[in-house]
Order: sequence, then C-alpha cells, then structure tokens
Amino acid sequence: MSIRIGIMGYGNLGRGVESAIRQSEDMELKAVFTRRDPSTLKINSEGVPVLAAAELENMENDIDVLVICGGSATDLPEMTPKYAAKYNVIDSFDTHAKIPEHFANVDKVAKEAGKIGIISCGWDPGMFSLNRLYAMSILPEGKDYTFWGKGVSQGHSDAVRRIAGVKDCRQYTIPVEDSVNAVRSGSNPELTTRQKHTRECFVVAEEGADTAAIEQAIKTMPNYFADYDTTVHFITEEEMARDHSGLPHGGSVIYTGSTGEGNQNTHVIEYSLKLDSNPEFTGAVLVAYARAAYRMNKEGISGAKTVFDIAPAYLSPLSGEEIRAHYL
Amino acid sequence: MSIRIGIMGYGNLGRGVESAIRQSEDMELKAVFTRRDPSTLKINSEGVPVLAAAELENMENDIDVLVICGGSATDLPEMTPKYAAKYNVIDSFDTHAKIPEHFANVDKVAKEAGKIGIISCGWDPGMFSLNRLYAMSILPEGKDYTFWGKGVSQGHSDAVRRIAGVKDCRQYTIPVEDSVNAVRSGSNPELTTRQKHTRECFVVAEEGADTAAIEQAIKTMPNYFADYDTTVHFITEEEMARDHSGLPHGGSVIYTGSTGEGNQNTHVIEYSLKLDSNPEFTGAVLVAYARAAYRMNKEGISGAKTVFDIAPAYLSPLSGEEIRAHYL
Repeated sequence: MSIRIGIMGYGNLGRGVESAIRQSEDMELKAVFTRRDPSTLKINSEGVPVLAAAELENMENDIDVLVICGGSATDLPEMTPKYAAKYNVIDSFDTHAKIPEHFANVDKVAKEAGKIGIISCGWDPGMFSLNRLYAMSILPEGKDYTFWGKGVSQGHSDAVRRIAGVKDCRQYTIPVEDSVNAVRSGSNPELTTRQKHTRECFVVAEEGADTAAIEQAIKTMPNYFADYDTTVHFITEEEMARDHSGLPHGGSVIYTGSTGEGNQNTHVIEYSLKLDSNPEFTGAVLVAYARAAYRMNKEGISGAKTVFDIAPAYLSPLSGEEIRAHYL
Repeated sequence: MSIRIGIMGYGNLGRGVESAIRQSEDMELKAVFTRRDPSTLKINSEGVPVLAAAELENMENDIDVLVICGGSATDLPEMTPKYAAKYNVIDSFDTHAKIPEHFANVDKVAKEAGKIGIISCGWDPGMFSLNRLYAMSILPEGKDYTFWGKGVSQGHSDAVRRIAGVKDCRQYTIPVEDSVNAVRSGSNPELTTRQKHTRECFVVAEEGADTAAIEQAIKTMPNYFADYDTTVHFITEEEMARDHSGLPHGGSVIYTGSTGEGNQNTHVIEYSLKLDSNPEFTGAVLVAYARAAYRMNKEGISGAKTVFDIAPAYLSPLSGEEIRAHYL
C-alpha cells in the first residue's frame, strides 16, 4: 500500500514536492489543498483532486502525511500545529530564532494526537544542519563555516522589488572563492560578512526610472545589502525571462577540526550542494522525510521531530537488509 | 557521570580512539585491553591501566562501551559477537561481502544480552555510507560515485611488502582529477576502475634487489594493481621515514540526481573528507558512535546497529534543545 501524501499550498515548493512524489514508487499524491479557489488551480498531476483547505477537517482517513508548503513568517507557525492535531505533518520552517517556540507548539499538539510533526526540513535548515551536527560530534575541537550560493535568494529579490521604480529583480548570493579556499585549507580564518559572500542583482527598471537612485537604494539597504559588496545590472524584461527564470541554489558546509597529541592533525569535512532547482530539491528532501514520518508513526512514535531525531534508514524505501548489503 | 570506555586492541586505530576520548568531556578511558603481554604496552593516557584481554570476562560493571579495534579478516568476526554478550560494543568491520553475516551474528548475541552492537563504523563504511543513503533517498533517480584518496592504503602497502626484495612500502591511492570533475559536472560518466584511481608506490628495496623485477611484480599484481595505472618510486629508508610517516586519507562521495518534468534539473551532492590521519579520524567517528550506543542502550534499545539506524542527535553530547537552537 502506498503512503498517501497531501500537499497543503501549491507554490514553487508545493510543485517541487509534487515532482518528488512522482519519483517515489511507494507514494501517492492524494490531493493538493489550497486557500485559493480550487477551481482556479491547475496542477501537474493528472487525476489528483485540488481541494479547499477546509476539506482537511475531515480527511484523516485519506492522508498519511501532510506536507505543508507555506511561508515561515505567518503560515507555518499557525498551520503546522493546527494540522498536527489530525495528521502527520512536515514543514520547512526556517525562521531560526523561532525554532524552539515552533518546535514546542508542534510537539504539544502532535503528542496529544499521537502524530509526528517534522519541522525545519529541507537543505538549510535540513541537510546542512545535519552535516554541522555530524561534523562537530565527530571532531569536537573544530569550527564550522557555511557558504551559500551561487543561487537566487527570494528574500533579497523581493526586497529589491519593493524599491520605487523597480519592476522585477533577481538577486544572486555568491560565495567569495578565496574565502572558501582559505577555509578548505584548514587555516580557520576569521571572516567578516563581506568576506564570505557577494551579491549580484539583475534589475528590470520601470520606464524612465532613475537607475542611479535605484542602484544606490539597493547598495545601502540595511540588513539585506549594506554589509556586502553588491553589483547591480539593469536588464530588459526579455533578458530577465531568458537568462534568469530558474531558481538555482546551493552552497557548502565546511568543518575543520583537529586531533592527536597537540592537535597536530587537521581534518576537513565538506558537504556541498549544487542545485538546478532549489524548490525541487527542497521538495525532494521533504518527501524523503515524509516517508520517515509515516514509518516512525507506524511504530508508535509521536511528537515534534527534526532531522537530528530521525535515523537515516527511515528515509529509504529499501529494507534494512538491502541498505546494509548495498550501501554500507 | 562519564561514559566509561574500554579499548580492545592498541594499534593505530586504538590510539586514534584514545586521542578522541581525550577530546570528549563526557567520556573517560577506563582501560586498554590487549592480547599482548600488558606489561610491554605503553599507552598515551596517564593513569589508565593496560589489562590482558582475559580481564574482560569480569568487567561488566566497569565499562559502558567497548571499542573493538581489531582487523576485519579474523579479529572482528570473532571478537565483536563474543564481547557483545557482556558489553555495548562498536567495531569498524569493513569486509563488505560479509557484513550481513557479521550483522546477524552480533544482533543475536546483543539482543540476548540486552546490549547494543554497532558494526562497520568509521568513514567508509560509515560516513560515506550515510551520505550515499541520504542522497539516494532524497533523489531516487540518480547515481553515486565514490573516490578514495589521496591517501595511504594499508592493504596495498602490505601487499607490496610481501614481494621478495621489498623492505618497506607506502602505497597512495589517488583519484583521477578529470574523472572527479566529470562526475561533479553532472554528466554521469561511465568510469572504469583505471579511469577512477591511480596508484603510487614508494618502495625501499633490500640491498642488491632487482628493482625492475619488483616494479614488474607490483604493476602486474592481480586485484591490487593490475587494473590500475601504477607509478613506482624507489627511495631510501631515510626518505621513507622523513616523507611518508603519516597516514593521510580521504575521498569523496558524489551523487548526481535529477528532478522535474522530464528530469531537466540536475543536482550534485558532494561529501568529501581530507584527513591528516586516517586512524585518528576513524577513531573519532567510533567514539561519537560509542556515545550513541551508550545513550540508546540506556533507553532500552538493543541489538546490532549500523550508522543507518542511529539518529544523529545521539552522537552529540549536547541536549536536543541545544542542538536545535544552535545547529539547525
């Protein structure tokens, strides 16, 4: 019997989850749920119903795991605890400072309901977090570095779009290659924000807009750009559509640690991702962990979980015997 | 209270484990056990007793986890099940074809005793296996590649030492850079054994030995060298001691997978290690998993386990709250 998945929210991430379910022979997309008018939504999976979110009131017997594809600012803090009262759920909550609170909220509801609620899943938080934890657990005397990119930051692209005279923007975060190499060498450099990443913006301006003023507004924007070296390019709508329609991303977690008498031996652990599509990869991580949620819950486990709490074998559709024989 | 560790076997790996315990504030090296005459063994930890292996008959109340540092060929198949009858144990068993049998043997004894037996731990098998499993679980339509090196292969060094006229040898396994880059590009190349790695031997010959014959014997040795491009250098004992006394190693697991309509999006996941000391890093992995063995057993879990079965949080001395707040 297939694991029956529901997707709540059908933006880029929801479509990424849908794509990953198609590649998972042990899973079935049961329905897509939306807060929009369902009749306006066309999804990629034929024969799968699009339903109003309110239908989730009564579908406990039809959905094994609900993958919640909402925003961290306002959607997930409300939705994940709410749906954990009826479903095994999983989200990609990434507001760092609020993880403890979100975890506690989901844990309480999920435990009462006897369900699993996996939070903060994806690649960062997610696979990058895992690699930080494995590395520092193995080499307690060490230091971790995270570099992001080259990739599109949606938050930074949105911030630029809010500037007067900007019609569209795509912002790329780019790691500084010399700094990455210094870290890889094991020299444990101290790096400022500016030394770690640069930012590059491709901007479509409104006709007649003051491009010098836009460039100035971008480069001096606090939090988003002021602490970085930023390059701004003005391009046409056609160039934007032709050259910047993808959502690539990636990055590296690099950990250097020492062992031995006098710590004379250095070890470098590097985990890196180069992703053509950030939402499709994130969706694929969510789907693998949805499998884990289902299987752990079948064993009677409940409550809030993160990637730290989940044994890797739960992610694979293969049996323990098969993974030991072929992948150990 | 500290986790009390015993080390069975005090070669390179045993010393690596000892070094890792010194960096672990929640652990204490209780004793080193040896099949040699204990009075002949000088260990690095002051005040820690060196005991005959036979003492392990009666030390159940003094040791929480026994780290077994023996060879995979004959030591571990006998020792790990034997000691699992009395102790939580962990080993680095790496004879691939025999993992299912070893797992079954350890599982039976450990379950009867209510102990945990972690087998095949280290970096390959171990961290590399984990990364293969995570990657293929996330991206089921993909392919994994493993490259080893640059590093010293003890097995290959030993094989050369058995050739008549060879006094000493250090063999380095070296990944072919062009092949690594082809894999990283996502082109999914088919690679022969010869295309993946080269081998380089530094040999000290006996005085008057026929070096041409030695070189020929190395390059044509079945299984070990015949399928590789091998370079042989003859050096002096002084050069060997000066330039080749370390045991560096490392390598990469590279996984490429596709997602999306028509699988048009490619993702590259790479996990790589660059290790100054293979035995010290392997020892550090064993010690982190020894912590997991102790904590899982405290929760009432027993039986044989591999890295696949162990949730990452068990490896860290920090609490769930701490790792969520700082590493997620």
